[in-house]
Parts: sequence; structure tokens; C-alpha cells
Amino acid sequence: MTTKISSKLTNILRKENSFLIVGHINPEGDSIGSTLALALGLKKLGKKDVRVLSRDRVPESLKFLPSSKTIKQTLPRKKYDVVILVDCNEIKRTGFESFNTKHTVVIDHHIIPADAAKSEFYTSLAASLIDPNAAAAGLLIYKVLNALKVAIDKNIATNLYTAILTDTGGFRYSNASAESLRAASVLVEAGAKPWDITKEVYENVPYKSLKLLGLTLSTLELKDGIAWINTSNSMLNKTGTTPEDCEDFVNYPRKVKDAEVAVFFRQDGNNNYKLSLRSKGKVDVQKVAMSFGGGGHAAAAGCKVTGSFKTVQNKVFKAIKTAIK
Amino acid sequence: MTTKISSKLTNILRKENSFLIVGHINPEGDSIGSTLALALGLKKLGKKDVRVLSRDRVPESLKFLPSSKTIKQTLPRKKYDVVILVDCNEIKRTGFESFNTKHTVVIDHHIIPADAAKSEFYTSLAASLIDPNAAAAGLLIYKVLNALKVAIDKNIATNLYTAILTDTGGFRYSNASAESLRAASVLVEAGAKPWDITKEVYENVPYKSLKLLGLTLSTLELKDGIAWINTSNSMLNKTGTTPEDCEDFVNYPRKVKDAEVAVFFRQDGNNNYKLSLRSKGKVDVQKVAMSFGGGGHAAAAGCKVTGSFKTVQNKVFKAIKTAIK
Repeated sequence: MTTKISSKLTNILRKENSFLIVGHINPEGDSIGSTLALALGLKKLGKKDVRVLSRDRVPESLKFLPSSKTIKQTLPRKKYDVVILVDCNEIKRTGFESFNTKHTVVIDHHIIPADAAKSEFYTSLAASLIDPNAAAAGLLIYKVLNALKVAIDKNIATNLYTAILTDTGGFRYSNASAESLRAASVLVEAGAKPWDITKEVYENVPYKSLKLLGLTLSTLELKDGIAWINTSNSMLNKTGTTPEDCEDFVNYPRKVKDAEVAVFFRQDGNNNYKLSLRSKGKVDVQKVAMSFGGGGHAAAAGCKVTGSFKTVQNKVFKAIKTAIK
Repeated sequence: MTTKISSKLTNILRKENSFLIVGHINPEGDSIGSTLALALGLKKLGKKDVRVLSRDRVPESLKFLPSSKTIKQTLPRKKYDVVILVDCNEIKRTGFESFNTKHTVVIDHHIIPADAAKSEFYTSLAASLIDPNAAAAGLLIYKVLNALKVAIDKNIATNLYTAILTDTGGFRYSNASAESLRAASVLVEAGAKPWDITKEVYENVPYKSLKLLGLTLSTLELKDGIAWINTSNSMLNKTGTTPEDCEDFVNYPRKVKDAEVAVFFRQDGNNNYKLSLRSKGKVDVQKVAMSFGGGGHAAAAGCKVTGSFKTVQNKVFKAIKTAIK
């Protein structure tokens, strides 16, 4: 595990000829933007055989990214000199079982559990760049391209800017470091257009999703520092939407002044609810989620709870009260 | 009119002793953050008599800004050596009639009409820094403080970061320049905390405002590239809200994919509507607004229209169709 760019890493990228770059399942801006930027960078180094792989399709809002159409969803049969895992650090997260390759490389900003770091997968890596302090995998790719002296053009800049923008919640979250803003500044100089990118990523919401948001927000309640909203099956039916349309809805109750915890309930079948939980700091929502068999972090977690809406609510609110730090 | 920091400007700030710093009416993050940052900077230069003036009160979401409690709303009687207009460039915009002072200075990033620039007010300014290319007045204050070699501390950084953040729509609008991101990066290094600031500015929405947003979004319609929503008197009554609670609502229909123009209708009395209009580029909404006696820019404008909701809608949609560029 290395947090600095090693000559091992740059040497492999310089010397080898064929590269398979793989992001994670359910890819977002950081996974898609980082893998594409790395591929474009390697092509600028003269590499002809570079392929980006994503098991799941590119989300609608990221299809504007330069070269996104070149991404393949099925594993090529041929053997690549190097497979590079980006924005993930285990084969499982790529959605594929294994890769046919000489060298495996990991470039990621997620934490690796201590015991996993000792596993054969890690000890046999040809090179790695793993820095949990980096705001985004895109920031690590930016550093790698700089180390390789690749001139960052508009297409690379657009991919990297989107990667950093999305993983810092639009430069809003606490990982929006001075370093990430400085990189963003250089990327804008290189041709990334903040408003064009923002329009595609954040201002391209399907009509029916906003309609669903309206119905859902009308259910907003606030009690004892908990703000919650609820999307029912009938709302999904009425608007012709799917669960994908409400992925960011939990951010709305989180905005409520005086709310310490935000809960988004989504009906999933008749007597079943999928929950997203957010905390502003005083409650450990990971604890809450884990008590129902779910998981996450102290500030953002999720779980599934069975029962009527009333029963589920009561159970969850009780669990939140016992998870005050 | 100067776009570079003149020695005239720095000399006045260094030599004079008492300063009255004035922002504009209906102040937002840039006005409040910039005036406070300049005041804190001048105090660090050893000036003891520095006062920030804002005719209108500090909005709820900006009360967290360091030193915001020191802002006065009423014009002091005493004569100040220097009055500095920040984020505005005419006395009228401050909400006051005149100032008792030796020198008047303007630091602003708004365009000055050619004929206004020739007026006595401009020709008699002691110094000015007017740069319409600057993303925010905060960016100009940042440059002035650098020119004065003031060390930027956490309190100044928080004010300036908020100024730049809010005027670039969270680094999203086309004015989010490389320069503004670079300044933001330095301000984070100096102690500004993006998430803490974001929480205060964007994640502190009153419960009732979100409730109103839900009701309003339920009215969303999309036709011929126009997406619109409507807040009625009864919605305001039902939720106990005021027009202030729906100030940013027009941003929601703007997000709709396939919408070229977004319209927010707010009922204002029985047979009267206040409109906010946004365009993604193909329609000049300033033209639309002006045809009803309103104003704005090509991308963002507003006006008032009298009539029943149906009549108002028809008039406005017709005007939009004739304003296609």
C-alpha cells in the first residue's frame, strides 16, 4: 500500500503495452471519469491497446464524458499486460471474477482493512497507489498523469474534473481539500467547463423524477431532531418512476434546519422498506443501520426493515435514539 | 475604472484611519462575506476604526459568518476618512442616500454602463477596483488583502470562501474560473472549512420551506421545452411560509432534462403573479421579462404579470416562443 507515486507504478505504465482499466460496479462520476482519464492519458503516451471496462452501464448523466462510448461492459478474452483497478481495491468490487493479465495494479482512495492488506491479492500487486486521504480517485489519476508528464487536454480535464466534482459532492463535503480545489483550478485552465459539466451532472433530471420528488417532499416530517420523507409504491406507479429516480432524495431531509438525522424511507414491496440514513454528527447512523443488518459509515448508512410503515418508523426512531454519540 | 489593484487604492487603505465599508441592499453571501473580510483585514493592518454597514439585515443562513454580529444597519453620524462600496457601484444600491466622508472607493465586479462611468460619482472616486471578469467581489477583496500583505486567517478565509462559493453557485456557474478555484484552495489552506460552510449556507433550510417546495414541485409541468411550477397563496398559507421561502425554487424546473426554459410562478395577491425565468441558452428570457415590464439577463430574469393563472401562463408562454434566439 503506497500513498506516493512509486517508480514501480510509473515504470509499468511506461513500459508495458496493453492495458485494461476497470472501475467498480454501480459506477458514478469518480469511477467513470477516472478510468476514462487514465485511458486517454495512456493513449497520449503512445499506448495503442488501452481498454476501459465497467460491468454496469454508464449512468445517463455521465454519458457526456469524453470517450464514454468506448467503455466495454463485457470482459475481453485476450490477455492484457496490465489490469488497473481504479476507485476500488478488490476484484469483487469490479463485478468480474478474475482477469487474464501479467500485472495487476490498484489506484484507489478507499481504506483497505488491515487483514485484507496482508492477503495474496495485495502482496502480489505489481504496483499500487492507495491514498485514503485523497478526495477522489480522480485526484490520484491526476497525480499519476502529472508524474508521467502527460499534457492534460480538454477531454482528460473534463473527465477528471467530473470525477473530483462528484466525489466531493460539488466541492461541498469535508473531503473538498485545498489539494482538490487546486487540481480543479488546473483542470479548468486545461479546458474543463464547470457550468457545462454541472448542467450534465446535476441539471439533467428526468421530469418524472422531479415530480416524484414533489410527492415525496410533501410527506416531510420533523420530530425530535429527526427529519424524514417517504416514497410509496403508489408514488412510483403514479409517476412511472423506478428506485433509481430517488437515489439522492435523502439529501433533502438532511437540509432541514434542526434535523440531526435524516431518514429516507422507500417502500420496497408491500411490507418492506429500504432506508437511507444521514447524520450531521451527533448520531452514529452506521450503528442504526447495522442493528437492522445494514451498513455504511457514521454519517451515511442504509438498511432494509420489514413491517408496516408505522412499525418500521417506530423501530428505526427508537434505534436512532440509542445511537446518540 | 481599473481592473488592476492600483497603488492609489493600497495607499488610501494603508494611510487613512477610519473606514466605513458598505455592501448592497438584499445582501447575499458575496456582499456580507466581502465586506466582513475587508473589515477584518483592515483591522489586521492596525486600523481601529472600521465599520461594516448593511441597510438590510444579515440573512439567517449567513449569521454564522465570523464578525457578522458587528454589522450595523443604520448610518453612523460621524465622518469617516474612507467609505468603501463593495459588490455594488452606485450609492443607490447601498440603500443609503449619501455618506459623510473624505474619500469614496468602489470595489466591485459588476459592469458599469458607459455613461455612468463618465458621471461625477466615478470621476471623483479616490480609487477603485472594478473587474467584471472577477467571479465575485470576494475574489477582489482577496487580491486587495494579498496586495496589502495581510495574512489571511481562518475568519477572513471563511468570509471570503463563502463570498466566492455563493456567487459561483457553489463553483457551478460559468464564472467559476480557474482563478476562483485557486483562491478557494488557498482559503481552505488558511482554515476555511467547505463542509461547515456548506452546511450553514445550503443545508439549513427551514422545515416549512421544504414542505412548501414539496407542494410546489407537485405542480411541475413540461411542455414544448418549458418546465414550470407554481406556488399559490393557499400553499403559502398552509405552510406558514413567506415569499422569502421560495427564492431559489426556479432552480428546480431548470434542472429538468429537455427543458430549455424554466418558469416559477408565484401568486402575489389574487390576480397577480411574480415570475422568475431561467434559460439554458436558446431563449433570451430578458426579452420575455422586459415585454412585461421586468428585467434581468438573457439567462435569468423576472417580471410581474396580472391576470388569472391561465391567462398569465398563455401570455408568458407566447412571449417565450417569440424570444427564441
